[in-house]
Amino acid sequence: MSVYLHDIPLHEAQAHFQQALESAGMWQVLHTETIPLGENACGRVLAAPIWAELSSPHYHAAAMDGYAVRAEETSGAMPNHPLILALPHQAEYVDTGDPMPEWANAVIPIEDIEPLKLDGSLADDPRAPDSIRIRAALPPWQYVRPLGEDIIATQLVLAAGHVLRPVDLGAIAACGHTSLLVSRPPQVAILPTGTELVPVGTKVKRGDIIEYNSIVLAGQVKTWGGLPDRYSITPDDFKQLKTRIQEAADSHDLVLVNAGSSAGAEDFTAPLVEDLGELLVHGVAVRPGHPVILGMIRRTTPTEGGQTVTPIIGVPGYPVSAALTGEIFIEPLLARWMGRVPFEPIEVQATLTRKVTSRSKDDDYMRVVAGRVGEKLLAAPLSRGSGVITSLVRADGITILPRGVQGLEAGSPVNVRLYRNPKELEQTIFAIGSHDMTLDLLAYRLVVYGRRLVSANVGSLGGLIALRRGETHIAGTHLLDPETGEYNLSYLRTYLPDTPVRLVTWAYRKQGLMVAKGNPLEVTGLTDLTRDRVRYINRQRGAGTRVLFDFHLDKLNISPEAIHGYQQEEFTHLAVAAAIASGRADTGMGVAAAAQALDLDFVPLFDERYDLAIPLEYANDDLLAPVFDLMQDVGFRETVAAQPGYDVSDMGKIQFEG
Amino acid sequence: MSVYLHDIPLHEAQAHFQQALESAGMWQVLHTETIPLGENACGRVLAAPIWAELSSPHYHAAAMDGYAVRAEETSGAMPNHPLILALPHQAEYVDTGDPMPEWANAVIPIEDIEPLKLDGSLADDPRAPDSIRIRAALPPWQYVRPLGEDIIATQLVLAAGHVLRPVDLGAIAACGHTSLLVSRPPQVAILPTGTELVPVGTKVKRGDIIEYNSIVLAGQVKTWGGLPDRYSITPDDFKQLKTRIQEAADSHDLVLVNAGSSAGAEDFTAPLVEDLGELLVHGVAVRPGHPVILGMIRRTTPTEGGQTVTPIIGVPGYPVSAALTGEIFIEPLLARWMGRVPFEPIEVQATLTRKVTSRSKDDDYMRVVAGRVGEKLLAAPLSRGSGVITSLVRADGITILPRGVQGLEAGSPVNVRLYRNPKELEQTIFAIGSHDMTLDLLAYRLVVYGRRLVSANVGSLGGLIALRRGETHIAGTHLLDPETGEYNLSYLRTYLPDTPVRLVTWAYRKQGLMVAKGNPLEVTGLTDLTRDRVRYINRQRGAGTRVLFDFHLDKLNISPEAIHGYQQEEFTHLAVAAAIASGRADTGMGVAAAAQALDLDFVPLFDERYDLAIPLEYANDDLLAPVFDLMQDVGFRETVAAQPGYDVSDMGKIQFEG
Repeated sequence: MSVYLHDIPLHEAQAHFQQALESAGMWQVLHTETIPLGENACGRVLAAPIWAELSSPHYHAAAMDGYAVRAEETSGAMPNHPLILALPHQAEYVDTGDPMPEWANAVIPIEDIEPLKLDGSLADDPRAPDSIRIRAALPPWQYVRPLGEDIIATQLVLAAGHVLRPVDLGAIAACGHTSLLVSRPPQVAILPTGTELVPVGTKVKRGDIIEYNSIVLAGQVKTWGGLPDRYSITPDDFKQLKTRIQEAADSHDLVLVNAGSSAGAEDFTAPLVEDLGELLVHGVAVRPGHPVILGMIRRTTPTEGGQTVTPIIGVPGYPVSAALTGEIFIEPLLARWMGRVPFEPIEVQATLTRKVTSRSKDDDYMRVVAGRVGEKLLAAPLSRGSGVITSLVRADGITILPRGVQGLEAGSPVNVRLYRNPKELEQTIFAIGSHDMTLDLLAYRLVVYGRRLVSANVGSLGGLIALRRGETHIAGTHLLDPETGEYNLSYLRTYLPDTPVRLVTWAYRKQGLMVAKGNPLEVTGLTDLTRDRVRYINRQRGAGTRVLFDFHLDKLNISPEAIHGYQQEEFTHLAVAAAIASGRADTGMGVAAAAQALDLDFVPLFDERYDLAIPLEYANDDLLAPVFDLMQDVGFRETVAAQPGYDVSDMGKIQFEG
Repeated sequence: MSVYLHDIPLHEAQAHFQQALESAGMWQVLHTETIPLGENACGRVLAAPIWAELSSPHYHAAAMDGYAVRAEETSGAMPNHPLILALPHQAEYVDTGDPMPEWANAVIPIEDIEPLKLDGSLADDPRAPDSIRIRAALPPWQYVRPLGEDIIATQLVLAAGHVLRPVDLGAIAACGHTSLLVSRPPQVAILPTGTELVPVGTKVKRGDIIEYNSIVLAGQVKTWGGLPDRYSITPDDFKQLKTRIQEAADSHDLVLVNAGSSAGAEDFTAPLVEDLGELLVHGVAVRPGHPVILGMIRRTTPTEGGQTVTPIIGVPGYPVSAALTGEIFIEPLLARWMGRVPFEPIEVQATLTRKVTSRSKDDDYMRVVAGRVGEKLLAAPLSRGSGVITSLVRADGITILPRGVQGLEAGSPVNVRLYRNPKELEQTIFAIGSHDMTLDLLAYRLVVYGRRLVSANVGSLGGLIALRRGETHIAGTHLLDPETGEYNLSYLRTYLPDTPVRLVTWAYRKQGLMVAKGNPLEVTGLTDLTRDRVRYINRQRGAGTRVLFDFHLDKLNISPEAIHGYQQEEFTHLAVAAAIASGRADTGMGVAAAAQALDLDFVPLFDERYDLAIPLEYANDDLLAPVFDLMQDVGFRETVAAQPGYDVSDMGKIQFEG
């Protein structure tokens, strides 16, 4: 079976696809239908313009509760020179919205009249007098809504392609329509393929991959106005996949085949598309996502509209690639088929927080977290791995590193295509530095305050450097000074000599060695790490845990070379725990909570203080107020204290300010 | 029946309502339910956080198709110093996503190996050799996705209150969940009331009001995540309305009563709320919308959650008031009940194009059209009438004139709370000046180009003044110079001496007198206007039609005082036509198309040239390119020529440039 994979630039791939759709008569609104005017029309796309059939109002209407009069007959009325108008020929009671009497051309509001009885005394009911006394003149058409004030018959009210909102439905009703011609949602078949896939809800074993791309793709199709149809998983079986693709193409407007689009042993999609129709594109120079397939499947019978083919997209298997393929190829196609403008993200300019590299052959879709720190809007790159779906979940937006760019330096200006309302970026609190797991609990509680905590784990020292660069509000730090035995203070003086900072204690926590359940190698302290069979997993340089570890190694006169795995570094407590849980290492230093999280045993060794360093300008800002509030909140302190190895007795205590 | 209407400030009304909801235990997530993980979860709000139950990947996985090896055994391999690794003990074939063999810690991509047979010659199938030759060393964990690379078990993946997007569903599946606890959509009863109301689809007669507020409110409730339940129209009948309100309150989470919230003759809602529960607020100082009612209805039986009351909102009857009441009171309540953050519009700063006044007692919600002209982002106020729903349809956003502000001068900076993506404001073409009806046809065709034409009718002279102020791209103009008989040119020289402008012809059109069908007063020319029985309706000063009219009156020596209605001004051709159609006037000057639109007769009198004046800087801008393209488009020209009285033979002809 021959396999082709030639990455072509994105715009070429899009042009190929569009040309093929045009010649198939499918680069237009695909189907329309008439629906009744009602709330279910919200979000639908008009397939024909709305021209007003009726004016609104369709008669001259009273705009106030009061008396319809002839404006001319009020002429001369003044506070000290009242006029009297007699019912029913000179004044007639009208409620708001009532038609004006033919002879009247103005309304006096009820609160501006005095109701009179026949004898000239005040009447009780202002709505049933014999005459009214007025003390001000009116211009013609005062408090009257003239015919057509809102809409005049034959006017264009809404253009085709408009996505209907609630108020639009009101205008459409007002101008005399009772039903609407809208585009019908395109039907999209989604075929997950792969013998290694298992459906959501399966108890997984090693090697099983939970199939969820079809849910993400179906969610996208639905969000963008299409009708998704998720198929069950097709194993890697050429004949079976062929049958299902043909069946799907015969009964849908678009077929998505997920995975099998690469050039691996079991990648059948490209040859199948060649077999059943035409392979247009195999491989697009975008990252993540390059093994995209675009093609056309011959239908066994033409559609009602006369189309003889059904487009097919081979969607790459990595989840980030799959989701971005949806945004790049599927959304614009659905937009075209429904006659609406494709979705355009809001873009903002931000400053890149760290250096990034990129393959210059590709358009590189980099996920970033964005937020304001002081004056600067920052974009912090997230994991680049195409398997890391949480990088999309956490992303505030996408920065595209275009073809030809090999990378960008920290501090470069970048455009961010936002996934969020830009206002939310103003509610972002950055916590960059050492990540304590209980900051997740803080993040969870901050949501109620409308704040969003974005954490990045770069170690304690990395956090102080980020503070110095003005790139974070908070730096979590637990750096022991080996000279003084003090935590954090000497580091603040060294790294932030010119920045006034508040250093506030978060918690005391136990550090120790995490080991597999039952502690099979009987590790009891750091001296055991020199044993031949014990594989250690370390934290990165600059991490507080690493400083603590090195401090105690030095005290015990243990050489790093004597420890197997000392060079192996992980960036978080949980990553160290995961390495041990998976058998990649036997032990590593970290907090008790991480060991408990992954069901490991824990050998407690040292107590340490974990502080938050916060520049004074942010410490006194409204943005961070909820952080300080929560540190004093009894319920919240109890939640943190309930984590293994945590002591919150000094939570919120200011260790230093200045 | 006593009626109270005391406008209190908005924030006080909101506080009253919130306090009452808090004491009723209803200022929180109201109901939750568990739903399966699937695309239908998109848009739902998490009622509990998602903590990872499983790591992702949950085993060490190959990140490439290739050979799993021990990194240590590749040490020393170089382009000129290959190494050979034997299958199955030193190398094992793996596809992307396969679990790594226990003994392996790196993957060599298949394209980087040479497959060998036992005899050392190259094997045909790179996936089934006896050994592989490699020419580069690998670091440990190269091309391996370690356990937990994406998600580590016990991590916080998503917080409660998160509105689910497609990618979130992927992350939730990846970390081992199969179902979700989400808030259940609140059920909202919508009761339209009023004897004058008729449902959509009724053939209307004078005084009938088409009831569509319930559709707009239902659309809003649905868009914001609730479940609307539209009741049929209840006539103004105290007992019947009482029964239905009680029934609605017993079976829903919220009751909306539309209209009947003012203080008019048939406004029952406030006394009914007092009767059936507690009236909290009657009247809020916002415009449009002030007669809002907020209250609580006693339920005949408590809810499952133990609530004994149901909140009720009396929504004002004017459509703009009703829709804004939805945004101000209903959306935040539904957000609270579903546990999500209330909707926050994007705000931009813009420059007000004209002076506005405001009642200083109210927060005034002014609808504006916004767009960029040159460097300036402009906000042009739309109709302030609370009956003009098209002002909401056309609005790009809302500018709030807060309490205490009596008005703002033209040129003032204002905040605009946008209804649109701010990017769309960059695609707006302003056409301010004389409005020709065929510009609607242009607007309709421009949508396809992603452009939006915003027209304002201020007359030809008003358009030139807007051009001078830099507040429009295009000014439609048909100003006759009485001295020279030339159109537009002398006015350009007078009003825009310093601005290089392109003057391009749109069309020649017939001007004449519109009269009722059958021309009952037998009007045949301007001299008939001096007859006693003939009521004229004029255009405003500065309108090209007015200049033309005055020019010909002067030629005929007719004095304006001799014309009954000369002082009555309307701002558009259609408005003049509507005045005649409704019997407010007998005749007025305008174009044939306007007469045809409202089924009037037309007495043709003069031919005139209607031009577009466009500053050169915009005439050459990409934004306006489609306007010039369409003027040359045969199909488009035919469409305009098909309008009565239009001649497009010079459409697109440049009359002047410089």
